[in-house]
Amino acid sequence: MASAAGRDGLQFRLVARPRDGRVTADLFEPERVERPAPGPGQMLIRVIYLSLEPAMRGWIDDLPNYRDPVPLGAVMHGFTVGEVVASNHRDYAVGDLVAGRQGWREWALSDGSDIDRKLDPGAAPLTANLHLLGLTGLTGYIGLTEVGRPAAGETVAVSTAAGAVGSTVGQVAKILGCRTVGITGSAAKVAACQEEFGYDAAIDYKQSPDLLAALREACPRGIDVYFDNVGGPISDAVMALINEGARIVICGTMGLPSRALEAPDAPQGPRYQRQLLVKRARMEGFLILDHLHRAEPAREQLADWLRAGRLACREDIAEGLELAPGHLLRLLAGENRGKALVRVGPEP
Amino acid sequence: MASAAGRDGLQFRLVARPRDGRVTADLFEPERVERPAPGPGQMLIRVIYLSLEPAMRGWIDDLPNYRDPVPLGAVMHGFTVGEVVASNHRDYAVGDLVAGRQGWREWALSDGSDIDRKLDPGAAPLTANLHLLGLTGLTGYIGLTEVGRPAAGETVAVSTAAGAVGSTVGQVAKILGCRTVGITGSAAKVAACQEEFGYDAAIDYKQSPDLLAALREACPRGIDVYFDNVGGPISDAVMALINEGARIVICGTMGLPSRALEAPDAPQGPRYQRQLLVKRARMEGFLILDHLHRAEPAREQLADWLRAGRLACREDIAEGLELAPGHLLRLLAGENRGKALVRVGPEP
Repeated sequence: MASAAGRDGLQFRLVARPRDGRVTADLFEPERVERPAPGPGQMLIRVIYLSLEPAMRGWIDDLPNYRDPVPLGAVMHGFTVGEVVASNHRDYAVGDLVAGRQGWREWALSDGSDIDRKLDPGAAPLTANLHLLGLTGLTGYIGLTEVGRPAAGETVAVSTAAGAVGSTVGQVAKILGCRTVGITGSAAKVAACQEEFGYDAAIDYKQSPDLLAALREACPRGIDVYFDNVGGPISDAVMALINEGARIVICGTMGLPSRALEAPDAPQGPRYQRQLLVKRARMEGFLILDHLHRAEPAREQLADWLRAGRLACREDIAEGLELAPGHLLRLLAGENRGKALVRVGPEP
Repeated sequence: MASAAGRDGLQFRLVARPRDGRVTADLFEPERVERPAPGPGQMLIRVIYLSLEPAMRGWIDDLPNYRDPVPLGAVMHGFTVGEVVASNHRDYAVGDLVAGRQGWREWALSDGSDIDRKLDPGAAPLTANLHLLGLTGLTGYIGLTEVGRPAAGETVAVSTAAGAVGSTVGQVAKILGCRTVGITGSAAKVAACQEEFGYDAAIDYKQSPDLLAALREACPRGIDVYFDNVGGPISDAVMALINEGARIVICGTMGLPSRALEAPDAPQGPRYQRQLLVKRARMEGFLILDHLHRAEPAREQLADWLRAGRLACREDIAEGLELAPGHLLRLLAGENRGKALVRVGPEP
C-alpha cells in the first residue's frame, strides 16, 4: 500500500481486445504515474476499493453492447469507493468518502461527473457500497421485483446463485416468501447457498449429469421466476420447467460467448419460442442503468435488511491493485468465492 | 349441400396423432351420422362455416400445449358459425345465428356451453365472425396492442404477414401510425401485403437468400415490435435488427416442429439471450384465450374499422366439409390465400 500513500500510483490501461472472446491478463498493462494535483474545480481521489464485474468481459470487447467499449489505451473502467484527499471542488471536501467510477487506478482526478454519491461510513461497511448497496445489489433487487415480480409462495430459480447478484436475488426472494432454488458450480458454492444465503435447495450443475431431473426434484411446483445470469444449457433445463405465466429475467449471459446474433458462430441452443407460447411466459433483458430512478428506495430497503442481519454477502478481496487482472480472470472463470473486490488502499 | 338439409350429416373424427409432427389427411376419419334431435335444454345447430387454424396442428398432438389435446376418437374441434334449427333451450330460438365450437360436423347438438355468442347478421358478413371479428382478429388486435404496444412512428415487423392474424396485425399497426413490414412466402402474398393490407414493405423470404439484408433495407430505423407467428430462421433475422426496448409477441410457432424443449430433437437456433439483454427487449408468449375479458371493446373497434373499409381480409373458402382435411394441410403448408374457411352449408 506504500504506493498509494507515496507520490506515484499504479494504474492499468486496456491495451488490446479479447481474441475470440477470451479475456487474458495481458489485455491490461500496468504503469506507474505521478500523484496528480487537482486543477480548478477538480478533486483528487485516493481509491480504496475497486469492484470487478462479470460484465467487464463485455465492456472491453467491441461487440454490440449496452455501452460503448472501453477505448483502447484508456485506463480500465471500474466502480470504486475512494476518499477525497485534495479538493478544489465546492461540493466535496478532504475526507469525504465517495462511490464512483474511478477505474483501475490508485489516484484519480475528478470533476465530480464520475462520482455517483457521497457515502455515510456509519450506514454500512464501506465495501457494501460496491455490492449490496451498489449496482449489484440494486440489480438483484430491482431486477427481481420489477421484472421478475415474484409472489409469495412462488418458486424462484437463480443461476450463478452464489454470485454477487444471484445471492442478493435468492435472499430477497426468500424474504418475499418464495421458494428459492439456486444453481451454482461447486460444492463450496452449494454450501454457501444453503448456509449463508438461505436457499431452499441448491444444485451443483457440474455434479448433476441430469440437471433437468435435479431441478425437477428441487422444484416440485415448477418455476415461476427465473433470474438468469448465464444463458446456456443451465437455462435450457430451467426453461423446460417453467409454469404458465413465468417471468424470465435476462440479467447476464456469462455462459455464452459474446457474438452478434447474426454471426455464423453465434451460440446455438434449443429454441424457446414454443415454450414461451405454450406457457405464455415472458423473457426480458434487464440492465440496472435503465432503472436508476428506482435506486434510492431500493437502497434504503437493502440497507434496512442489511442492518437487520437479513442479508448476507461474501466478499472475495484481492489485496493490492496489481492483482486486479488475475482476480478478474478468476471471476470470469467462476472461481471467486463472493463479490470480487480489490483493496487498492487502506480504509481511513 | 344436400346432406345438411337431409336427415344425415358428415363429421370427422380424429383417429390418430401426427407421427414426428407430420399432419396427414388420414388422421381424420369421415363418417355419416343421422340428424340428431335435441333433448331437454338442448338445441340443434346446422353448421354453416368452419374455421381452420394453424394451431390445429398443436390441438391434435399430445405434446405440452396450452390446452388438452383433442381426444382420439372425438369429433375434431373447430370454431364455427351456425344456425339454430331446433331448440329446447330457453336462450336460443330457431333461426338464431351463433358463433361457437361445434367442430368438424354438419349437425351439432348443444346445451349452450360451446356457444360463444349470438351474431347480428347485419353487423358484418357472417364469415367475418370467424376471422376479423373472431379469435384471429382479436389475436392480432389484442396481441399487438396489449403485448406489442406499438407507438406511432415505430416499425412493426410481422411474420406470416398475409395470414389471417398477420394481416390484421399489419393493418392495425398501420392504422396506429406505424411503419409496417411484412414477411411472407410467395410473390402473390407479397402483392397481397402491399395491395390489400397496406404494408409499407413486404419481403418474400423464399426469394431472399440474404433475408437479413432485405430486412435491414426495409427497416432503416430498426424494429420496435415483432409479431411472430413462425419462430424459426425468419425470426433470427428479425431479432438481429431489434431496437432497444423492443417487444416480441410470440403468437405462433408455425416454423418449428412441436417438440418438448428438453427433447433431444428439439429445434435449435441461435440463442437470443444476449440480444435480449443488450437491447433490453421483451419476448412474450400470447394466447388470446387469456385475454377474452378484453374481447368486446376490441371487437367493436375492429367492426368499426371493418365497416369504414379500413380493414381488408381475404378468405380462402373450401366448398364442403369433405374438403376440410385437405384444406387444413394446405393451410399448414402455407398454400392458403387468405383466412382458411370451409363452407359446410348454405347461408340462410
